[in-house]
Amino acid sequence: MPRQQSSRPSLKAVAERAGVGYGTASRSLSGSGPVAPETRQRVLDAAEALGYVPNMLGRALRRQRTTFIGLVLPDLGNEYYTEALDTIHHALAAAGYQMITVADATATGQDALVSSLAQQQVAGIIQVPVVGASVVTGLPVVQFNRSELGAGVPCVLCDDEDGFRRLAELVMHHGYRDIAVLLGDSAMSTTVARAAGVQGAVSGTDARVRYCYGSYTADSGREMMEELLNASDGSERPDAVIVASPRLMAGVAAVLGAREMSFPGDIAVAAFDDPEWYRLLGPGITTFDAPQRQMGRAAVAMVLDMIESGEPPSNPVQVIPGSVRERGSL
Amino acid sequence: MPRQQSSRPSLKAVAERAGVGYGTASRSLSGSGPVAPETRQRVLDAAEALGYVPNMLGRALRRQRTTFIGLVLPDLGNEYYTEALDTIHHALAAAGYQMITVADATATGQDALVSSLAQQQVAGIIQVPVVGASVVTGLPVVQFNRSELGAGVPCVLCDDEDGFRRLAELVMHHGYRDIAVLLGDSAMSTTVARAAGVQGAVSGTDARVRYCYGSYTADSGREMMEELLNASDGSERPDAVIVASPRLMAGVAAVLGAREMSFPGDIAVAAFDDPEWYRLLGPGITTFDAPQRQMGRAAVAMVLDMIESGEPPSNPVQVIPGSVRERGSL
Repeated sequence: MPRQQSSRPSLKAVAERAGVGYGTASRSLSGSGPVAPETRQRVLDAAEALGYVPNMLGRALRRQRTTFIGLVLPDLGNEYYTEALDTIHHALAAAGYQMITVADATATGQDALVSSLAQQQVAGIIQVPVVGASVVTGLPVVQFNRSELGAGVPCVLCDDEDGFRRLAELVMHHGYRDIAVLLGDSAMSTTVARAAGVQGAVSGTDARVRYCYGSYTADSGREMMEELLNASDGSERPDAVIVASPRLMAGVAAVLGAREMSFPGDIAVAAFDDPEWYRLLGPGITTFDAPQRQMGRAAVAMVLDMIESGEPPSNPVQVIPGSVRERGSL
Repeated sequence: MPRQQSSRPSLKAVAERAGVGYGTASRSLSGSGPVAPETRQRVLDAAEALGYVPNMLGRALRRQRTTFIGLVLPDLGNEYYTEALDTIHHALAAAGYQMITVADATATGQDALVSSLAQQQVAGIIQVPVVGASVVTGLPVVQFNRSELGAGVPCVLCDDEDGFRRLAELVMHHGYRDIAVLLGDSAMSTTVARAAGVQGAVSGTDARVRYCYGSYTADSGREMMEELLNASDGSERPDAVIVASPRLMAGVAAVLGAREMSFPGDIAVAAFDDPEWYRLLGPGITTFDAPQRQMGRAAVAMVLDMIESGEPPSNPVQVIPGSVRERGSL
């Protein structure tokens, strides 16, 4: 069984074992002052024999700066954030920072988490804010993927408007003219940008678009798709759907599978993000993929720059273009 | 722009604004000693006016116990851990703990991360250990999902042996007699348990089994499956494959798709874990699903019990049964 935390050897115990004073032991281990080489070695030996672990956190607090960064997400159970989580972790670790990960899908929940992170003295926060979340003051904060905290808080975003415009253009290029767009919450900054992108592509053309708003769950995708297929007789059915998340897409795929409808034969499909299974369904799903890794690295660079410079970032709004991947679903 | 960390108001500033001494301000905010109600209100008003955030971390360090738990994974980019991550986060947050998430796929990398977590004074660690990782001393550690740290360290595991035995029995029940099992690294505790489960099901029957070892990537699944299909003429081809991870399964599905082979018609398929897309491919993939949420809650309960009691857990090895979900792939 591992020993408990209370048994952690103290610096005092190391000093006693080495037969030196506390100050000498401290200087020997931190390298922060002159100590005779043989004395230093005695202290290092004592520390190793006792299994002494330096209290980096205590040091950080004395310098009034921890190496903790809070990562605030709407939902840790959403695979959409897996790639960003991985990238942000690696970039922070490379810079000597640790990531405290928290998640809540409500504004009051995120506010409470952010306030608790501030009490735990995090050096900065990277946040995927939900609609209605408050801005914490006194801490460097970078918004990630969404800008619900408003224009006053620096952000790293995907160019959703451009991506959905390109996706809608591609749909029309393949000859489809009756397009349904399945989106998340209509109040979200990303939803607004995506709808604007599609609208920009179709305006002035003969295409018809309907926007359906739901939430990012497979059930919501299932419901919206059932409604589109049920409510319409053959002539009113959309000939293409653009689906704004993998979870919505899973619901759409389940409905098409249950009705033995295939794509693009029965209905054309385009989606957002790029989980492995998009390549495996039918002829593969054409999609607009957000540059999660680039965005993650940019958000880490921005928050560390704010922490280390003590200044707002010189480029507080970074909007990074994603990639359209053509497969067989259109 | 948010203010920087250095601008955080101190307790001293609160005391000055309220016109009281430091000790009075401290007692007023922590409720740890007698203060006249009107004085306390003055301090609370001053704290609110200045936006004072109590330093919970400083308090925790003075009590020599933080509320940080390190979660050590092999890979944050692996969706397999998403559900556990979510559950562990929620269970820790409900108990007032914060989760520091770190990941490395190598033993030396995990050792360095664990040592850094100890220096950051985490109260305990939940670890999915890689083969060869070392045991940290002086800290409560719970192994999660794998037991590579050995029998001396408490663990919460899925009953992989039982699950793969049931899966192999189901495969045989459907009449298949030539079974290939696609596994991860042969040195991993989970791989050993899974192979033992299949072996237990087939021994004494007329079924033939071959075990293929790779790594948990789609490429590895693709390679193993290509090799199985290429190396064998028609008669030597397995009639069923059991695939021990979603990433391996994604590679297998890609190979079958490229060859226009369908399941169960051309080859029967059973898998492990249960991402949403298993329900969407072909007639749905029959799978053994690990009880990630139960396991996550059990691991949190175990590590918190070790921290709070200062004792080893009374039940240091928890092996939790999973569920076999039958769909159409056999």
